Amino acid sequence: MTTPRTDVTSIGNAIVDIIGRCDDAFLGEIGALKGAMNLVGADDIKRIYDRMGPAIEISGGSAANTVAGVASFGGKAGFMGKIADDDFGRIFTHDIRSIGVLFSADPVANTEPTSRSLILVTPDGERTMNTYLGISTSLDSTQLDLELIRDSAILYLEGYLFDREGAKSAFRDAVAVARTAGRTVALSLSDAFCVDRHRSEFLELIRSGIGILFANESEITSLYQTTSFDAAADCARADTKLAVLTRSAKGSVILANGTSTSIAADPITRVVDTTGAGDLYAAGFLFGYSRNYSLDVCGRLASLAAAEIISHIGARPETSLAVLAASKGLIS
Amino acid sequence: MTTPRTDVTSIGNAIVDIIGRCDDAFLGEIGALKGAMNLVGADDIKRIYDRMGPAIEISGGSAANTVAGVASFGGKAGFMGKIADDDFGRIFTHDIRSIGVLFSADPVANTEPTSRSLILVTPDGERTMNTYLGISTSLDSTQLDLELIRDSAILYLEGYLFDREGAKSAFRDAVAVARTAGRTVALSLSDAFCVDRHRSEFLELIRSGIGILFANESEITSLYQTTSFDAAADCARADTKLAVLTRSAKGSVILANGTSTSIAADPITRVVDTTGAGDLYAAGFLFGYSRNYSLDVCGRLASLAAAEIISHIGARPETSLAVLAASKGLIS
Repeated sequence: MTTPRTDVTSIGNAIVDIIGRCDDAFLGEIGALKGAMNLVGADDIKRIYDRMGPAIEISGGSAANTVAGVASFGGKAGFMGKIADDDFGRIFTHDIRSIGVLFSADPVANTEPTSRSLILVTPDGERTMNTYLGISTSLDSTQLDLELIRDSAILYLEGYLFDREGAKSAFRDAVAVARTAGRTVALSLSDAFCVDRHRSEFLELIRSGIGILFANESEITSLYQTTSFDAAADCARADTKLAVLTRSAKGSVILANGTSTSIAADPITRVVDTTGAGDLYAAGFLFGYSRNYSLDVCGRLASLAAAEIISHIGARPETSLAVLAASKGLIS
Repeated sequence: MTTPRTDVTSIGNAIVDIIGRCDDAFLGEIGALKGAMNLVGADDIKRIYDRMGPAIEISGGSAANTVAGVASFGGKAGFMGKIADDDFGRIFTHDIRSIGVLFSADPVANTEPTSRSLILVTPDGERTMNTYLGISTSLDSTQLDLELIRDSAILYLEGYLFDREGAKSAFRDAVAVARTAGRTVALSLSDAFCVDRHRSEFLELIRSGIGILFANESEITSLYQTTSFDAAADCARADTKLAVLTRSAKGSVILANGTSTSIAADPITRVVDTTGAGDLYAAGFLFGYSRNYSLDVCGRLASLAAAEIISHIGARPETSLAVLAASKGLIS
């Protein structure tokens, strides 16, 4: 096994977020399930966009947000995802490259547009996503940069990819390449409803030996079809070597080799927008893990990044996470 | 003269702002004049974008920001500007319509892209714009909605339009239509360097009888080629019936019929981003003026709107200005 040149490489949907505010009633009017990632078609995204208020556009995408976070910590990161030759594709490419993430996708012309998600933030700070996958629906193994995967200490995958056949296949190919190169494969379950749509395949992949599993409370209980977090955690402990389970304000728990490490959520003054909380938690954890920090420090870096992201609109850090972590004495 | 159905209609560049942070040295590296609106070509905007850090996209455009502000106060507003059939054109259209502003431009296909401005915000909160006009360079009289102009109490024009021949001509046609209908014509000088490029034409238009002139300190001193604000103010008083001169933190002064009304700047905790300060000042003033408030109240509504906009990133209000003004007892 050669020394990796990149800390974390992820594969995911290359998405630009269109973020606006709304009240809870509006979610009902457009038929969106609060707090979830709702997949919508071309007609639906137009219908919702026409009805929602003014918005701002910020690069997003779950696995892309995670590697953006890793880069903000000072880590070396790469991303694979599919974009179209349009303004949103150029925005996505600019933003991820400008923070030093390796991203070399060729924009696809004259086809479906770049993926976008209408993110509606309610007064409680909760985000509800209405995602139009567009060009991402044709992501497949031909978009993989196998050398980058072999050169990365960690390959990180978002569960959202399971919603598309071609991507699912790319996902499996990437896992095989990473494993052969002796790298760590990390998986985020992404969304409880996504888990519900693909439960058996998720379980099959996890039981085949995923290195690190990330899930929040609703995702892990959905996976194991139980209402008990503790029961789900026991299942996760049995199925994985390292499971990292997040519980929003209740903090998180890291299950590894029979040990359990509890991490408190970082205190914040006000939750402005929860978009990206899980993505940035994973960023902090993976950065710490790739640099061989203790699981406790990995968890604290994760909580720090999650707290930064929910204190403002958008799922990309506004502050250098390296500076923030150093100011807390977590990294030097 | 029929009763107007719209309070304020503006004509301007339909722009989406791409806002990022940088230090002062970066402005030197890209050759941008700090605090100014730098016009750039297609190659230059690509060169600067490739070098700048991550950004967020928010609808902008000086005169468009002003009518967005009028709408936020509860006023009826309209906008005329040119967009291309691209993602940025759709963003612009959505955002301005979603707050109730009348805007009915047909997107132009297969030509130059929608106008965009790379806005770099330095640590002091000052914004430096690098604007690529794109499709806006072909704005001409055919884009005017003459009925909307005749139906609006106030026609508001941004001085930036003087940078393009076709737009200048549209500008003059619009002024003629508004005057014939007995409406008020308001003009913002927009930028000191823009004034310098078109001084004689600005003076000719102003002296032909503009209803309300808006200018900041550097613009009005540039117009009258003096270093003395007081000397420039005396010239403005002689040339106009109503001149509104802004001086950033020093507040503003309203010169009308031999009287002078001083308005203090609203106190704010921290200047985050000055983008849109002048645009929103004009919004508050024009809303008050169209509703026949006293000049003092018009000025205070203006200061309130300017303070809201510089307290966050972007040039569109994040808070309802109507609610904000009511909470201060300025409007009921």
